[in-house]
Amino acid sequence: MINQFPVSTKKIEFFTHNGFRKILPNGCTAHQALAPVILLGQIFSIMPITGYFHSHGPLGLKFKMKSIQLIYSSLTMTSVLSIVIMFLIHSIQREKIGLNSAGTLIYYIVILTTMIEFVLLAYNWRSIMIQWTEAEAPFLYGPYATGKGVPLESLVRRVAFTVTLFAFLEDTMNFLSAYKLNKLHIKQCPHASDFWYSFYHREHPHIVRLIPYHPAVGVVIEATMRVAKFTWNYGDMFIMSVCLTLQRRLQQFNDGLERLAGTEQSQVRWRQVRLDFLRLNELIRMLDEKLSRIILMSCANDMFFISVQLYNIFDVKPTLFTTFYYWYSLLFLMGRCVLMLYITSSIYEESLKPLRLLRAIPTQNWNLDLQRLVNHVSLKNSAFSGKRFFYITRSLILAMAGTIITYELVLLDQVAKDKDNTLDCNY
Amino acid sequence: MINQFPVSTKKIEFFTHNGFRKILPNGCTAHQALAPVILLGQIFSIMPITGYFHSHGPLGLKFKMKSIQLIYSSLTMTSVLSIVIMFLIHSIQREKIGLNSAGTLIYYIVILTTMIEFVLLAYNWRSIMIQWTEAEAPFLYGPYATGKGVPLESLVRRVAFTVTLFAFLEDTMNFLSAYKLNKLHIKQCPHASDFWYSFYHREHPHIVRLIPYHPAVGVVIEATMRVAKFTWNYGDMFIMSVCLTLQRRLQQFNDGLERLAGTEQSQVRWRQVRLDFLRLNELIRMLDEKLSRIILMSCANDMFFISVQLYNIFDVKPTLFTTFYYWYSLLFLMGRCVLMLYITSSIYEESLKPLRLLRAIPTQNWNLDLQRLVNHVSLKNSAFSGKRFFYITRSLILAMAGTIITYELVLLDQVAKDKDNTLDCNY
Amino acid sequence: MINQFPVSTKKIEFFTHNGFRKILPNGCTAHQALAPVILLGQIFSIMPITGYFHSHGPLGLKFKMKSIQLIYSSLTMTSVLSIVIMFLIHSIQREKIGLNSAGTLIYYIVILTTMIEFVLLAYNWRSIMIQWTEAEAPFLYGPYATGKGVPLESLVRRVAFTVTLFAFLEDTMNFLSAYKLNKLHIKQCPHASDFWYSFYHREHPHIVRLIPYHPAVGVVIEATMRVAKFTWNYGDMFIMSVCLTLQRRLQQFNDGLERLAGTEQSQVRWRQVRLDFLRLNELIRMLDEKLSRIILMSCANDMFFISVQLYNIFDVKPTLFTTFYYWYSLLFLMGRCVLMLYITSSIYEESLKPLRLLRAIPTQNWNLDLQRLVNHVSLKNSAFSGKRFFYITRSLILAMAGTIITYELVLLDQVAKDKDNTLDCNY
Amino acid sequence: MINQFPVSTKKIEFFTHNGFRKILPNGCTAHQALAPVILLGQIFSIMPITGYFHSHGPLGLKFKMKSIQLIYSSLTMTSVLSIVIMFLIHSIQREKIGLNSAGTLIYYIVILTTMIEFVLLAYNWRSIMIQWTEAEAPFLYGPYATGKGVPLESLVRRVAFTVTLFAFLEDTMNFLSAYKLNKLHIKQCPHASDFWYSFYHREHPHIVRLIPYHPAVGVVIEATMRVAKFTWNYGDMFIMSVCLTLQRRLQQFNDGLERLAGTEQSQVRWRQVRLDFLRLNELIRMLDEKLSRIILMSCANDMFFISVQLYNIFDVKPTLFTTFYYWYSLLFLMGRCVLMLYITSSIYEESLKPLRLLRAIPTQNWNLDLQRLVNHVSLKNSAFSGKRFFYITRSLILAMAGTIITYELVLLDQVAKDKDNTLDCNY
Repeated sequence: MINQFPVSTKKIEFFTHNGFRKILPNGCTAHQALAPVILLGQIFSIMPITGYFHSHGPLGLKFKMKSIQLIYSSLTMTSVLSIVIMFLIHSIQREKIGLNSAGTLIYYIVILTTMIEFVLLAYNWRSIMIQWTEAEAPFLYGPYATGKGVPLESLVRRVAFTVTLFAFLEDTMNFLSAYKLNKLHIKQCPHASDFWYSFYHREHPHIVRLIPYHPAVGVVIEATMRVAKFTWNYGDMFIMSVCLTLQRRLQQFNDGLERLAGTEQSQVRWRQVRLDFLRLNELIRMLDEKLSRIILMSCANDMFFISVQLYNIFDVKPTLFTTFYYWYSLLFLMGRCVLMLYITSSIYEESLKPLRLLRAIPTQNWNLDLQRLVNHVSLKNSAFSGKRFFYITRSLILAMAGTIITYELVLLDQVAKDKDNTLDCNY
Repeated sequence: MINQFPVSTKKIEFFTHNGFRKILPNGCTAHQALAPVILLGQIFSIMPITGYFHSHGPLGLKFKMKSIQLIYSSLTMTSVLSIVIMFLIHSIQREKIGLNSAGTLIYYIVILTTMIEFVLLAYNWRSIMIQWTEAEAPFLYGPYATGKGVPLESLVRRVAFTVTLFAFLEDTMNFLSAYKLNKLHIKQCPHASDFWYSFYHREHPHIVRLIPYHPAVGVVIEATMRVAKFTWNYGDMFIMSVCLTLQRRLQQFNDGLERLAGTEQSQVRWRQVRLDFLRLNELIRMLDEKLSRIILMSCANDMFFISVQLYNIFDVKPTLFTTFYYWYSLLFLMGRCVLMLYITSSIYEESLKPLRLLRAIPTQNWNLDLQRLVNHVSLKNSAFSGKRFFYITRSLILAMAGTIITYELVLLDQVAKDKDNTLDCNY
Repeated sequence: MINQFPVSTKKIEFFTHNGFRKILPNGCTAHQALAPVILLGQIFSIMPITGYFHSHGPLGLKFKMKSIQLIYSSLTMTSVLSIVIMFLIHSIQREKIGLNSAGTLIYYIVILTTMIEFVLLAYNWRSIMIQWTEAEAPFLYGPYATGKGVPLESLVRRVAFTVTLFAFLEDTMNFLSAYKLNKLHIKQCPHASDFWYSFYHREHPHIVRLIPYHPAVGVVIEATMRVAKFTWNYGDMFIMSVCLTLQRRLQQFNDGLERLAGTEQSQVRWRQVRLDFLRLNELIRMLDEKLSRIILMSCANDMFFISVQLYNIFDVKPTLFTTFYYWYSLLFLMGRCVLMLYITSSIYEESLKPLRLLRAIPTQNWNLDLQRLVNHVSLKNSAFSGKRFFYITRSLILAMAGTIITYELVLLDQVAKDKDNTLDCNY
Repeated sequence: MINQFPVSTKKIEFFTHNGFRKILPNGCTAHQALAPVILLGQIFSIMPITGYFHSHGPLGLKFKMKSIQLIYSSLTMTSVLSIVIMFLIHSIQREKIGLNSAGTLIYYIVILTTMIEFVLLAYNWRSIMIQWTEAEAPFLYGPYATGKGVPLESLVRRVAFTVTLFAFLEDTMNFLSAYKLNKLHIKQCPHASDFWYSFYHREHPHIVRLIPYHPAVGVVIEATMRVAKFTWNYGDMFIMSVCLTLQRRLQQFNDGLERLAGTEQSQVRWRQVRLDFLRLNELIRMLDEKLSRIILMSCANDMFFISVQLYNIFDVKPTLFTTFYYWYSLLFLMGRCVLMLYITSSIYEESLKPLRLLRAIPTQNWNLDLQRLVNHVSLKNSAFSGKRFFYITRSLILAMAGTIITYELVLLDQVAKDKDNTLDCNY
């Protein structure tokens, strides 16, 4: 499926053991930039691959069937799968699937699918990274400067860790809010039951109806919940990291082209420029193919939950903290989604810039390679997509916002909302 | 209306009597691939053409006025037409056309139109297949390999039969559900009437009010119902089969181009490549013109019934089997519709691939024919369409899904739904 | 504003007195084709121009300030203006503007604006027709055959008269329905008043409140109503006629190009082909500029009234004839609107066809003029538009239908509808 | 970020002291055309820049930290900021944020952001104007005639002052309506309080709850309100002025190209034409980058308030004057918004015109520069945008109108509206 196009035959010597990092004048490789992001994921059982910090570069990557990472992944996936099954049994027993429980079900199924997708991605990661490293080779040694701004490595790290930090805050507030609501519930209801017993009966009735409550069960549930939520979060974050890395290469290309545009160059030089752009485009296409399903699920999940959260935001909440949590959660979700889309759409924006720079090249220097490059860029189809159902550009963000607003206006006052359930003493 | 473009003057020798199938190194012709699909249709009176298994290829096809196929078709069309007329009379007598009966009426009218369209298609099928066979000739003998994957013949057969199987299951469940509802009705109502008498009064009141009930009438009604439903199903399936066959040719072209891209070729060779692509495009255009109305009706019918089914899905059903049937029916309908759109949109996706492959051709080998080919592909207008009102691409699928969701949200809780009519003892 | 492009310097000799029509081998001029349509309009006071049947061709056209046509136009415009003013006074006196009266007001204002637009068009008609005749000159004498099908003259006449016939039927049924409703009203209410007195009080309360009723007033009102409705109808019909005429020229061009495509031609010949296409494009652009406002108003009016009629169609009507009238009126309106859009969009469709034909030209014959022609057609912007807010293409029809359906679903059951006012004896 | 493209090396001699204005044959510079608009803004504290009437042209512009303009700006910004904060405190104290107060909050935040954006714009204005003056240099001296129509200077002045006049009228009526409502309220309620005391308690409860009422406070509030409203208005007006100026240059280019199109020119001359177009495009791009955020906020604000006003328009108002004010306000708002979008979209329309003119150039004179120019214009991407989320073209206007209509229809009768609050004597 991947291109057998002529890649620069120059041996990729930097796959050698020592001093790898030091001799790179143009910043780190994609492999190095993404390593901390993979590490972060593995803490929560995602991306079960080994060797991503290996000094041999992508050649050190391995997907081992008996690695701790894969075992950890399998455990959490089994756990989420059990929840899905228990949820289904619970729903069929109660003989109704309301909008809310349909939402919860979709959430778990999407999480499970995302987890599986990340295992598949880990399985392909070695070959992906080898191709990526080959494709970005000219930008590491060649005349393309890394340019201004934060070094790629720390840029990716900063964005990933900031998003994670806000996500942890959201997660903590989620727990605290549930804790407070349970406290309120216990005060209002004549239960003799244990605090945590009540907590899990209120938060996860579909589980505790099937498995008798036990503190150990509570811990497993809680851990699974955290991993599930993190997986959703990680999808967005991973796409951001990949796109930031790719965008840097496009910027390097554009900066290089801008420097060349005013000068006179041989046709061979221009041909090289065209081939470098082609190489980046093939890279985008290959990554889009591999990540499309994760992008599709991230976007669908984000849109669905923004709609749901917006729909619930104007309800009166039992405690002030819960109100505050809902607003924070909504704003975090919207912020994360917009940031992800914005960064991803910048791939498209960057891939159009050469058009402008090519116009500035004097007609005396014009040649067939430049003409072919102009034709190539003019087609405007270097963008990440959700399985080609939609392309992630700036105008998509507006379209998504418009759709959500329409849905909210239509739903306003139309569907009966959930009752305050702290007063419902029958769980 | 059809192109008089220079087709390869090489005599189409494979229209000869013997050993036709064996000497084809690159798989079967479209004529052969579609023959089982036509046979399947004819069982249910659709596509009244003869000679589709004839060893002379498309030259053996005949549309005979006195064939059994056409007589069978005429009978079923008359039968559906009678139902439409009886339905209209029934509606006018009751002096109201509600949303539901409007839906039923639209269903029968679309079915009838589809049947007529297929007769017209059968009438034109000989000339269509002759052009098709000419257009695909270079892909049967020439240097274009059939490539990897399932052979075309069995691919088409598998897809068609799988869809049909699921359709039969749906049909059976439909009957069983109606049967069970009638049983429930008889138990609850003090009717002295016969089981089947009650069945047809409940299911087809517009007919049994006008024609006194008789078991023979029941059989005819039932047969017509099955044929009607199959016709709808067959529309989607036929489009899929045609598109799979076309897509294979485009894949062969792309595979061939990929093999050539890295090599040095004479301008004459590239000219041939351009003419082969042109030929495929003319074929797509011709088939689009002939099938557009069937596509338009299939899409409209699918969208309309997905909306209706979704709207009814959350209602409480009298029996569990009916609930199960509704869910299966909805999922089958959505699955079939998405599959049809996905396969059809792959024509568009495949027709864009040459762009990417052409970029890889070295500038030294560039020539006017390649430039014209790039210009041609860049226009991005090789796609199947619904009478050019819409083009079937991946983004159309998203647009249709978005439209259906909007409609459902708007209708939610807004319109009074049908009552459970098993309790209505006045039929 | 109009192009000063090099038009063929060959003297336009066919503006001569005698035998004008006979020497044209390729059918009639646009001037001749549109003359009957203008005559039809003038019966209802629209397009106040003289000399449109003059044998000198467009040079005989005149917009005279003292012609009967203009006086007639001024009278009907004054009449409609008075109705608008009386309607406004009536609304302010009753101190409310409901949705329905807003609709009526918009209707009259659009009619008045359309009338004014047609006077302006008549004022410019001479210069428009002179340009048009110059632009179409190569298609009257040159090698472009009129091709198959109905001669242009009778095609335009047939379409125009058929639409008018259906419009008259609609108008008659409208009157009869109002007549019947008034009869019912008189039977049910203890009025001592005259039949026609009651009729006008019921149909045009805003007028009869301000001007005391008198049979002469009734006649004037009735005449104005007919002219107003015809004006709306005429807008659509005029656009159709213009587009049919233009489309014929594009067809002639495409047929000519198809004949040339396979042959070898000198560059001078291809240059002429390019200039002919350019000429047709300039003509489309010029006509679009002149007719854009009429198109915009026609589309807006059609969409608005289709929505209103659809919204009212499911109400119970007091008499069966009224029910029948509403359905006929709705179907006529939808049919007319779709026909107008379909014919107009065929300009766009025809203007794309050269792309396909140009591909078939062998590369040996390729030259700069053909390349420029391909570039020109590839831009796909020869279409009629509503002031460039929208372009009339096939997909626009779908978009309009989708918008209307959404509006209807949203409005379903939402807004209180008008009561049956035959029972309201207070007028 | 800004282009280092080869600007005409000819020294920009017109930055000299004397007789600057007189020697310009082609009308005034952008700097001169916009000066009165900046002056108008400064009366209301916007665009704190000095030297915009300086005879040295843009070189005389200065952004001084200690200028009166900046101090004035800071004061009004602080004032608006206080209102935002007081509004927030007020909302939290009342423990609810309804749709209406959310609307008011959004209004003040957008105003504040717009103010800040204009300070940032003022900060960059000197460099923007220097680039602009350089880019438009060929159009001031060169062979590009200013063409017909109103001189640029007075055109900008007329549009700006007309819009301002209507805005003042709106503002005055707003005040008078509030005044009358307060009078009515005092008559109906047994308050002993002062007229103005009551006025401010009714109009700005969030302020007067926190700061005890004092006439001086009233004056400050009133002044801040006027400035806030003017800022919103000024955003639209400023965009219009900039676009009118730019559009004139594009018109000059097109007029010049039209004059050249028929003639034979050296390749050097055509190259110059291409570079002039490139220069204008770079200018559009640069201005779009600088103004994008202001455009985004203006469009969002306009759309939001048109929706809100439309939603409220059919309510019964306590006084006739208030009804009249609401209609005037709505029509003014819609008119201003459409005018702004129409003028802005004309940049896009003008930038496409060269396509048509280039087609008319004879093939004999064709050369690579013309081909590159055609390719450049064909990409159709010279348009102002809202941060590239949307591009301002004619079809955007239609899309916005369609969206607003959908929203209104959805909201119709759905949300409980505000009560007439003149009868609520508890403020």
